[in-house]
Amino acid sequence: MAKITESKLFTALDGFEIELPSWGFSDTGTRFGKFFQPAAASTLDEKLEDAGLCHKLTGACPSVATHTLWDFDPDMNPRAVARLAKKYGIKLGAMNPNVFQDQIYKLGSLGNPDPKAQQQAIDHMIDSVNIGRAVGSKYLSLWFADGTNYPGQDNLVRRKRDFQKGLKKVHDKMPRSMTMLVEYKPFEPGFYHTDIADWGMAYVLAKHAGPRAKVLVDTGHHLQGTNVEHIVGFLLDENMLGGFHFNDRKYADDDLTMGSIDPYAVFRCFNMVGQFEFDTGKTPKIGYMVDQSHNLKSKVEAMITTVDMAQRQFLKTQLVDRRALARAQKRGDVTGAENLLIDAYETDVRKTLARWRRARGLPADPLAAYRKGGYEQKAKKERTAARKARGVVQSSGGYA
Amino acid sequence: MAKITESKLFTALDGFEIELPSWGFSDTGTRFGKFFQPAAASTLDEKLEDAGLCHKLTGACPSVATHTLWDFDPDMNPRAVARLAKKYGIKLGAMNPNVFQDQIYKLGSLGNPDPKAQQQAIDHMIDSVNIGRAVGSKYLSLWFADGTNYPGQDNLVRRKRDFQKGLKKVHDKMPRSMTMLVEYKPFEPGFYHTDIADWGMAYVLAKHAGPRAKVLVDTGHHLQGTNVEHIVGFLLDENMLGGFHFNDRKYADDDLTMGSIDPYAVFRCFNMVGQFEFDTGKTPKIGYMVDQSHNLKSKVEAMITTVDMAQRQFLKTQLVDRRALARAQKRGDVTGAENLLIDAYETDVRKTLARWRRARGLPADPLAAYRKGGYEQKAKKERTAARKARGVVQSSGGYA
Amino acid sequence: MAKITESKLFTALDGFEIELPSWGFSDTGTRFGKFFQPAAASTLDEKLEDAGLCHKLTGACPSVATHTLWDFDPDMNPRAVARLAKKYGIKLGAMNPNVFQDQIYKLGSLGNPDPKAQQQAIDHMIDSVNIGRAVGSKYLSLWFADGTNYPGQDNLVRRKRDFQKGLKKVHDKMPRSMTMLVEYKPFEPGFYHTDIADWGMAYVLAKHAGPRAKVLVDTGHHLQGTNVEHIVGFLLDENMLGGFHFNDRKYADDDLTMGSIDPYAVFRCFNMVGQFEFDTGKTPKIGYMVDQSHNLKSKVEAMITTVDMAQRQFLKTQLVDRRALARAQKRGDVTGAENLLIDAYETDVRKTLARWRRARGLPADPLAAYRKGGYEQKAKKERTAARKARGVVQSSGGYA
Amino acid sequence: MAKITESKLFTALDGFEIELPSWGFSDTGTRFGKFFQPAAASTLDEKLEDAGLCHKLTGACPSVATHTLWDFDPDMNPRAVARLAKKYGIKLGAMNPNVFQDQIYKLGSLGNPDPKAQQQAIDHMIDSVNIGRAVGSKYLSLWFADGTNYPGQDNLVRRKRDFQKGLKKVHDKMPRSMTMLVEYKPFEPGFYHTDIADWGMAYVLAKHAGPRAKVLVDTGHHLQGTNVEHIVGFLLDENMLGGFHFNDRKYADDDLTMGSIDPYAVFRCFNMVGQFEFDTGKTPKIGYMVDQSHNLKSKVEAMITTVDMAQRQFLKTQLVDRRALARAQKRGDVTGAENLLIDAYETDVRKTLARWRRARGLPADPLAAYRKGGYEQKAKKERTAARKARGVVQSSGGYA
Repeated sequence: MAKITESKLFTALDGFEIELPSWGFSDTGTRFGKFFQPAAASTLDEKLEDAGLCHKLTGACPSVATHTLWDFDPDMNPRAVARLAKKYGIKLGAMNPNVFQDQIYKLGSLGNPDPKAQQQAIDHMIDSVNIGRAVGSKYLSLWFADGTNYPGQDNLVRRKRDFQKGLKKVHDKMPRSMTMLVEYKPFEPGFYHTDIADWGMAYVLAKHAGPRAKVLVDTGHHLQGTNVEHIVGFLLDENMLGGFHFNDRKYADDDLTMGSIDPYAVFRCFNMVGQFEFDTGKTPKIGYMVDQSHNLKSKVEAMITTVDMAQRQFLKTQLVDRRALARAQKRGDVTGAENLLIDAYETDVRKTLARWRRARGLPADPLAAYRKGGYEQKAKKERTAARKARGVVQSSGGYA
Repeated sequence: MAKITESKLFTALDGFEIELPSWGFSDTGTRFGKFFQPAAASTLDEKLEDAGLCHKLTGACPSVATHTLWDFDPDMNPRAVARLAKKYGIKLGAMNPNVFQDQIYKLGSLGNPDPKAQQQAIDHMIDSVNIGRAVGSKYLSLWFADGTNYPGQDNLVRRKRDFQKGLKKVHDKMPRSMTMLVEYKPFEPGFYHTDIADWGMAYVLAKHAGPRAKVLVDTGHHLQGTNVEHIVGFLLDENMLGGFHFNDRKYADDDLTMGSIDPYAVFRCFNMVGQFEFDTGKTPKIGYMVDQSHNLKSKVEAMITTVDMAQRQFLKTQLVDRRALARAQKRGDVTGAENLLIDAYETDVRKTLARWRRARGLPADPLAAYRKGGYEQKAKKERTAARKARGVVQSSGGYA
Repeated sequence: MAKITESKLFTALDGFEIELPSWGFSDTGTRFGKFFQPAAASTLDEKLEDAGLCHKLTGACPSVATHTLWDFDPDMNPRAVARLAKKYGIKLGAMNPNVFQDQIYKLGSLGNPDPKAQQQAIDHMIDSVNIGRAVGSKYLSLWFADGTNYPGQDNLVRRKRDFQKGLKKVHDKMPRSMTMLVEYKPFEPGFYHTDIADWGMAYVLAKHAGPRAKVLVDTGHHLQGTNVEHIVGFLLDENMLGGFHFNDRKYADDDLTMGSIDPYAVFRCFNMVGQFEFDTGKTPKIGYMVDQSHNLKSKVEAMITTVDMAQRQFLKTQLVDRRALARAQKRGDVTGAENLLIDAYETDVRKTLARWRRARGLPADPLAAYRKGGYEQKAKKERTAARKARGVVQSSGGYA
Repeated sequence: MAKITESKLFTALDGFEIELPSWGFSDTGTRFGKFFQPAAASTLDEKLEDAGLCHKLTGACPSVATHTLWDFDPDMNPRAVARLAKKYGIKLGAMNPNVFQDQIYKLGSLGNPDPKAQQQAIDHMIDSVNIGRAVGSKYLSLWFADGTNYPGQDNLVRRKRDFQKGLKKVHDKMPRSMTMLVEYKPFEPGFYHTDIADWGMAYVLAKHAGPRAKVLVDTGHHLQGTNVEHIVGFLLDENMLGGFHFNDRKYADDDLTMGSIDPYAVFRCFNMVGQFEFDTGKTPKIGYMVDQSHNLKSKVEAMITTVDMAQRQFLKTQLVDRRALARAQKRGDVTGAENLLIDAYETDVRKTLARWRRARGLPADPLAAYRKGGYEQKAKKERTAARKARGVVQSSGGYA
């Protein structure tokens, strides 16, 4: 294992940030319905409060991604939202347009056979660009639900061309400081084809869109067996990796908490970035973001443990002895090279992390601090009352 | 190809029935929301009307499966529902309890760590048995959403034992004329484990439950690559195949219309039953049922084309020359044996089917008849007005 | 269904050609061993004889792909091989270098950490280019077994860069008339990563290599669930589709005969090309090739039935009513659009095909003609004697 | 985390044994060929020597599984082999018949349409029983390559019935002290169907065979996504789990070293056994065995690191606080329950393991001891000379 001083590890941790999604604090579910959590956030204020609390307890998630449709009222001043975030100790991160919920998007957004739907999607994305400009957001993060359910339903090449045109239009409206992240996904909600099905399609469409478009890797958006870290390395070398949406899955796009199914895979993703930085001396600008649906776990608890997991796996990759690794790889020592990764991964970094937290004035165990702090009970009580006062009727959105 | 008279094919078609699900006529969607169809059924009356229309046009779907929770009001006389079905020319089929929608089922039904949730599930299933007895239903069809999302979340063996006990209690309440169908599914909505994950678990649990419990094969409930027809043959030989839920999928449990992705796979399932009947001289009692979610297609159109697809694939399996096949298999003639299946599959049976329909007083092309009949426009108009009159507010059940 | 005259269908069939691989006539197997066929080819002459026979019987496979290592002796005049092919009524097709069998390739070819292995691979590929130039081959078809088995075993980005360099060197040696086909594969024999794992990597590497490099789609080289026809359409629109290796699979890269598991998927691939030609008026230059391992089937029988299957599925796509399809897609008629594909697919084209064959002086049923012709019995006898005369000892290549 | 004394952990480690396979020391490969290792074993003596060395260095693998066909000459006295093993400090473990390599098994063994092939397979299995009886083996470990490649190739139900009969015949010949292990596998080398495709089929066939037949779980023999630990728990509760074949995979049955792709999954398998023991107070008799193909890694190094990995993951499961876990599960504390597993898994147990080794007179780091001992260089030299002396010609078993 690499000999590395704790001070260097602390510096590495100081530089590690991961963005939380506002929608991760709301009630979500599956197509079979939602199970409500009384403490879940149901207003923008509550979401920002929760995100701020996560940052206060972990010190590693200073920004929050927003969903334009769900978080920004048309008649709301975006800067007011930025100020609200600031009040909770955080700032606004990636802008996420929503071009899948409106009934007009039944057959797609940019890929829709109806130009009206395409235009509505473009307009909404440009609105998001403008809000992002107003609040200083660096990322326009684009996920499309576009796809088809049946062979023959639509002309896949026609859809591709309309995607190219639409993305270019949006790209041209972005300020120079903004990066477009193009996300891909193999299926769901499209069950026969998805217009941006894999990293290759995202790459080609990003290239067509313009120089500020990059690929976003959502770790759960891959067919079974995909070697995600290989894609990460490939995109890094092409200077086309824009960011990550982290989550875990055992089957499809399950949106489980990061590392809950396969923590070694998280380690290998961070390791690919660390290896690239070591080899090139460059520090690529990558947006680390969380995208999870905590259907059963407490929202805030899930986020805190995610940040904790991310820090642990990131920290372990700092321990890889990269010089020894290069030598072992060069001489074809398969077992020796592999063991250098495993050595780092098997190391228990929790005490180091606790010391860093204490040194930075943070609780050594953020989850314990959250549980002890009584935050959840308070939120449960207050938010239940607030929903009642607002006359909110919660619908589990049953299947049929 | 087998030499078989058209009269024998007609007799085979006369004996072929497939049950439609009441919930297949309602608006459904994905976790990202629902796209509404104005003509979709939203009352039990409308569902039965639609199912009746499908049967009127195809002559092959005389029964409808009901969902206890969605279709039977507690204060409703089940026999009144049976009479309503009769009015529309159909009868009630399998009873489908719902033990996943109520908030108490967040951590499961029979597998829930809380005995109260288990008891509520048992009570609801026994209610369904009683309704089924009242309306003369032959099947209690059980699908459980039970599972966990995270390693360690629960004790999987404790859950298995509680499942055994619960199923046995329900089985003991069934009349002798009723068969319990135990469905399995590898994932969703459980994303780490599902309590009845595969046919083997359903088989063992059915054996524990009692002699009237059998396995239900939902064609979409398998991991990628599973050889479904092999399972069908294996269960047939064990006398443990109770029925099918038909649908298709390219990825996970996509609930697309039967044969829309892989029609040859449908042919092979029917062929396995046909082969078994040929080999044994027995006619196993198997419930053929549809279970699909038509998120984009017109509900009734999707059902009619499904029945049509089922008849076509079933009819093709009647053309397999089983004597020649047995000989080719015996002598190890791989190409010859395979070609005997392909010969039957490649045959275009649509004209034969049209002749059978005409001979039975049915429209030769049921989809064309539906489109020409103006049913959908009428339903759209009337049902929109009815929803308005009832003050129904449709919620797309958005993601977050 | 489109109204199309039989004469137009015959013209379409006249233009349809599919290339056979020389190695498809040899004994192959799995890692657990080979089962020998006495009639299998074991010399280049026998392979060309078999390929010629397939073409004589089907009229649709006039060229044969060769494997440089297995088919060309270093001291053999390539033109002599071309003449031998001509003797059997066929011509030489794609050149396939072998950079995976020599012990030096244990850790890879172009990706090997050892520059000597890289150089040997480059030299062998350039030799193949030169042989191809001598025999008038239009394709250099590149499949790499390169990959790693364990995380950490090698530096994936270093390997990518060496691949870029190596491919460029080979590309620069190709005559202008030659196209480089870059094949991809997700796994096997690399079990952790494969250097060219998906179409996106093949696309990027082809772009780096030069303008005459295109992507080769082997239909069996995809993770479960991949929508292959979508990739085909995407590559067509990018003018980057070079060709196909056809085969079928249910699980991994099973190399079964085309359409044996999912014939509708073959139809959809051809349909994507047909749709593209209809939409653009262009006829893209695509190499249709077979790449199968007939471990259990008679080699020649498997090839003949493959050509037959290819012609059938191709022919069905000619029947799609593309004008009606475009209208249905435009108005969002999901069921109607899908049915236009199904109508064509369900049509039994075997009689049309038989008539075309008779009109072209070919046997109406090529497999029956092969079986009746006694070719296999003759080959069995002669080739067994020839192997004996040459003192060949067949080794099943057992597992351990 | 559970408070547990080091002495208790040492006792646990004392009781942990894992069996090595003789074939894991030979050269193996893929269908594309083998890469030879000069130090690999090619005689039974060398295999036993290597297995003995692994045990000497780790103290945890005192037995070796043998392959009847490869390890026992017909004219060899089985007891002589047992004595040879004893000489190397180990004993003989599971007997593994080979009913897939002989050319007669082209269409299967027990499932073959030809009764002669079935009988040869039964005879060979009974021979293995007899050898096992002679050497005191407790396990007859059965893996069948039986399957088909094409729909229609054979009658799957006929094959099932012949499997039932054949297994029963073999079962009836086993001494009371012997357990039959029935292994399953979804595909390869059968590419359309495998006769024993999943645990459910193995379970049913074992039940038909008799009371001493149990299921063997090979961790790599599952379709992507299968929850293996769930199957383990289910079989434990049914008293039908006979043993494990450990290995890892990212894609298909890759036979990589245990835990090399997903170490947390190994932990969860051992944890399921530990949980079952805690809940029931029983210690089920389970055979832990390794089944890997080290195509690139040094054979002995791969085995030593595998034993090390197995001990580490096993040891971590001893640290799970099962009382706290039961409480968290009972109250539905999803995050809390999951964290109790993660706490144990993240603990670095390597120092504890090193202390146990020293206390037992073993090298603290067995891989380092192996590398320092010069064993591999010696084997390389001696075995190369021995192969030369015996006139062995190594064939890479090329693809075509």
